[in-house]
Amino acid sequence: MQDTGKRIEAVEELRKVLSEDRVTMNETMLEQHSSDESYHTPYLPDVVVFPDNADEVSDVMEVAARLDMPVVPYGYGSSLEASVIPHQGGITIDFANMNNILKVREDDFLVTVQPGVTRSQLDKELKKYGLFFTVDPGADATLGGMAATNASGTTSVKYGIMRDQVRDMEVVLADGSTIHTGSMAAKSSSGYNLNGLFVGSEGTLGCFTELTLKVTGIPEHIMAARAEFTSVDDAVEAVIAIMQAGISIARVELVDEEAIRQMNLYSDTSYQEVPTLFLELHGNEAGLQHDTQFMEELVVDMNCRQVEFETDTAGRNKLWEARHHAAYAFIHNHPGRQQMVTDVCVPISELAGAIKDARGAIQASGLSGGIVGHVGDGNYHILLMLNPSDPYEMEKADQVNEQIVNYALERGGTCTGEHGVGTGKQKYQQREHGGALQVMRKIKRALDPDDLLNPGKIIE
Amino acid sequence: MQDTGKRIEAVEELRKVLSEDRVTMNETMLEQHSSDESYHTPYLPDVVVFPDNADEVSDVMEVAARLDMPVVPYGYGSSLEASVIPHQGGITIDFANMNNILKVREDDFLVTVQPGVTRSQLDKELKKYGLFFTVDPGADATLGGMAATNASGTTSVKYGIMRDQVRDMEVVLADGSTIHTGSMAAKSSSGYNLNGLFVGSEGTLGCFTELTLKVTGIPEHIMAARAEFTSVDDAVEAVIAIMQAGISIARVELVDEEAIRQMNLYSDTSYQEVPTLFLELHGNEAGLQHDTQFMEELVVDMNCRQVEFETDTAGRNKLWEARHHAAYAFIHNHPGRQQMVTDVCVPISELAGAIKDARGAIQASGLSGGIVGHVGDGNYHILLMLNPSDPYEMEKADQVNEQIVNYALERGGTCTGEHGVGTGKQKYQQREHGGALQVMRKIKRALDPDDLLNPGKIIE
Repeated sequence: MQDTGKRIEAVEELRKVLSEDRVTMNETMLEQHSSDESYHTPYLPDVVVFPDNADEVSDVMEVAARLDMPVVPYGYGSSLEASVIPHQGGITIDFANMNNILKVREDDFLVTVQPGVTRSQLDKELKKYGLFFTVDPGADATLGGMAATNASGTTSVKYGIMRDQVRDMEVVLADGSTIHTGSMAAKSSSGYNLNGLFVGSEGTLGCFTELTLKVTGIPEHIMAARAEFTSVDDAVEAVIAIMQAGISIARVELVDEEAIRQMNLYSDTSYQEVPTLFLELHGNEAGLQHDTQFMEELVVDMNCRQVEFETDTAGRNKLWEARHHAAYAFIHNHPGRQQMVTDVCVPISELAGAIKDARGAIQASGLSGGIVGHVGDGNYHILLMLNPSDPYEMEKADQVNEQIVNYALERGGTCTGEHGVGTGKQKYQQREHGGALQVMRKIKRALDPDDLLNPGKIIE
Repeated sequence: MQDTGKRIEAVEELRKVLSEDRVTMNETMLEQHSSDESYHTPYLPDVVVFPDNADEVSDVMEVAARLDMPVVPYGYGSSLEASVIPHQGGITIDFANMNNILKVREDDFLVTVQPGVTRSQLDKELKKYGLFFTVDPGADATLGGMAATNASGTTSVKYGIMRDQVRDMEVVLADGSTIHTGSMAAKSSSGYNLNGLFVGSEGTLGCFTELTLKVTGIPEHIMAARAEFTSVDDAVEAVIAIMQAGISIARVELVDEEAIRQMNLYSDTSYQEVPTLFLELHGNEAGLQHDTQFMEELVVDMNCRQVEFETDTAGRNKLWEARHHAAYAFIHNHPGRQQMVTDVCVPISELAGAIKDARGAIQASGLSGGIVGHVGDGNYHILLMLNPSDPYEMEKADQVNEQIVNYALERGGTCTGEHGVGTGKQKYQQREHGGALQVMRKIKRALDPDDLLNPGKIIE
C-alpha cells in the first residue's frame, strides 16, 4: 500500500476524471482485487477504478504518472501466478465495465472486443455466425486477461495460442498515450511486431483497451475419443505417431492415473485408473472417419488397452466436462486445502521423461497431486494439494515446482507454457532467458521508464 | 561509403578476427552486395565479410561498434524493398558460409539451421524424414533472410507466416553479445516475446546466427485446381465462401486476366484470359474428395465458368510452375525493363474493391502490369514493368504504389504483407502505425543506441 496522503490525493484526482462511484476504496472491493485463483499471498490495492472507455484509462494513467503510483490491470482474476496481485498497492484498473463485443466481421473472420469480454460471452455471440473463438484455457477468463498472459489450453495444438489470434490491440501506454499494435490484415511485414510483444506482457507495458481477434468457422464434424494406456511413455509415443501421420488433432490431453482416480471420485465416471488420452478431431465427416480409423490403428500399435469414441454431442460433453473438472475434482476431494498448479512446457520428445520425473517429485514430496497435460504441445501441469500456511508443505511444493522447471529448462523447454510469469515464475527468468532477460529489461525501461505498469511482474 | 582511412582501419581490424580471404574489398564482390532483386538504387558496402560462426559474427560486431561502422546482414539478396542495400556503406555480413542444417528433431517437428541455409536446401533434407518447411515465398531465399523480413507466400493461408515457424533464434546484438530469443517448447508464456520481435526486424536489432524452426509432415494427399471466373469480385467471394465452409485450403492464388495473358505468352499454357484462382488442398484422400466436391459446388454458385482439377504430381507441378513464373513471364515479355513488385494486405472483405482500384491505377499509369494475390490472406501484388532510369515512369509507378497503399491503409490493411519495409515502404510507416512508430523507435534506440545495425531501414 502507498502512504495515506498519497492515497487520498490519488482518489481525489481519480474522481475528477471518473464518476465517484467508479473509484472505490471499499474494503470488500479492495480484498476482491487482492488475489488471483492461486496460492500466492494477497496484497490490497489502494484504490480500484472501473473505467468505461480508453479515454478514461488514459486519464487514470496520467493521474498515476503524476502521482508516481503503480497501476495493475485486472480482468477476471483467474491468473495463477499472481499477475494481477498489486504487491505495491496502487491503482487496480478493473475492466468489468468495458465488456462490449464491438464488431463481428464475419467475412474477415475477425471480432473486435473490449478487454472485459469473457470467453463464454464471446462464444455465445459468435455462435450466431457459425464461428467460434479457438482458445480454451478452461477458466472463463476475460479476453484482455488471456492476451495479457498469452493464454492457451486444450485446443492450441490445432488452432494456436492467444498470440496467434491477436491482429490488433488498442493499448494505453505508461504516459497515457494510446497506440494500435497491428491492423486488420491477416499478416504484415510492416514495422516491429508489437502485437506479439504486448501479448504476454502481463500489464507491464500497457493496458489493453480493445482487441481485434481472429475467429474460426465451427467445424463441420467433431469426434472425441478416450484412449487408455498402460504407461505414460506409450501414451506420449502414440501422440507423436498421430502427429507424424498428419492426423490433425484438435485436442489431445494426457491425464495420469491419479488424476483419473480423483475424476472418478468427483464425477459420474468409472474410468480405468490408468494413463489416458482424451482426444478430439475436427473436420468433415469423410475425412474424420478416415482419420479415426487410422488413429485407432496407431494407438493400438502403441499398446493402447482400449479406445472409446464419442461422436454425439452429449457423450463428447461428458468426456470434456470430466477433463475440465480435473482441477475441481482435486479441490473437492481435499477439503480445506488449496491448489498449486504448475505449468511447464518441453519439446514433445522429452515429455514422457518429464512426466516420469514429475511423478517421482510428487511422490517424494508426500503431497497429493495429479498430472494433466496438453500433450500435443508438450505442456503439462501438476495439480498439487497443499495448505499454504504450512511452511513445510509450501517448501515441499516449491521443491516440486523447482524440480520440474529445472528438468524442462535443461531440455530446451520453458518454465511456463501458458500461465505466465507474474511473480511465481520470476526466479526462473534468468536461468531460462540468460542475456535475453537484459533485452527484456531494456524494452521495459524504454516503454515504462518510471516502472508504473504492474511493477515487479515478469521482470524484477 | 565511409571515408578511406576508416575503411582501411576496418579491413585491418576485421582481418585480425577473420581469415584474410573472408574479408574482401573486391569491386565485383562489393557490387554483388550493393543491390537486391528490386528497382531500388544500389549502394556499395565498404567491405564484405564471410563469418563461419556466431563467435566471428560477434567479433565483427565488436569491430563495427569500435569504429562506429554500419553493419548490414545479407542472405541471398532476394529482398524487394532494399532491406539489404547498404545506403551508408559499412560492413556487409554475408552468411553464405553459415549454411549448415545443424539438427533435425523429427519427433519434435523441429529443425535447427544456420541463417545461410536456403529454402530448397532445407526441403531436400527434410524430405528424407517425410517433413517439409511450409513457408514458400517463391524465391529460393535463405532462412535467415526469410526471418528478417517475416516472409510468407502461397501456403501461409493454411500454415502461417515465417514468424509462426520460429521457435528460437540465436542473435548477435549490437554490442556483440549473443542471446537466444526463445526455446524448443511449442509454446511459452515466459518473458517478452523476443522471437516475434526479432522476426521481421530486417537486421535492425541483431544478426541471426542460428534458427530453430517448426516443420510439418508432408500431407498424405494433395489436390490442385484452377477455377476461372468472369470477375475478380466473384473469385474473391468464392474464396470467402470456401473459407467460411471450413474447407482448409493450403494455397489460393488469384491471378488477373493480364497476368494470365503474360503467363500464356511465356509458358506452355493456353489458359482462358480471365480472373483465375489457383487452389491447393492438403489432407487425407477421403477428406479431400469430400472437400473437393463441396468446393466445386461453392465456386459454381459464385459464377465460376470452369474448374479443372489436377490430382497427379505432373499436372500440379505444371500449374504451380505457371503461377510461380508469373513475375518472370512479365520480365521475359518486356525486354529491357525492370519490375516493381508492390505488396499490400487488406482484410479479405476489402480485397475485391482493392484489386478493382489497383487495376484502375495501373491503367491510369500507362504502364504494363498484372495482379497476383495470396487471396486467402488478403495479400496482393502488382507486377509493374518500368524503366527505373526514366523519371516519368518512376513517378507513375510511385503513384500506383502510393494509391494502393493508401487504399489499404484506409481500410484497416497494411502497407506490406510480406516483403518488408526496407526503405521502400518507409514513408508509409507513420501513416500506418501512428503513435506505435514512436514505440518502435524506442525499442530500436534501447537495443541499438548507436544505430549500427542496418541503419535507415524500417525506421528513419
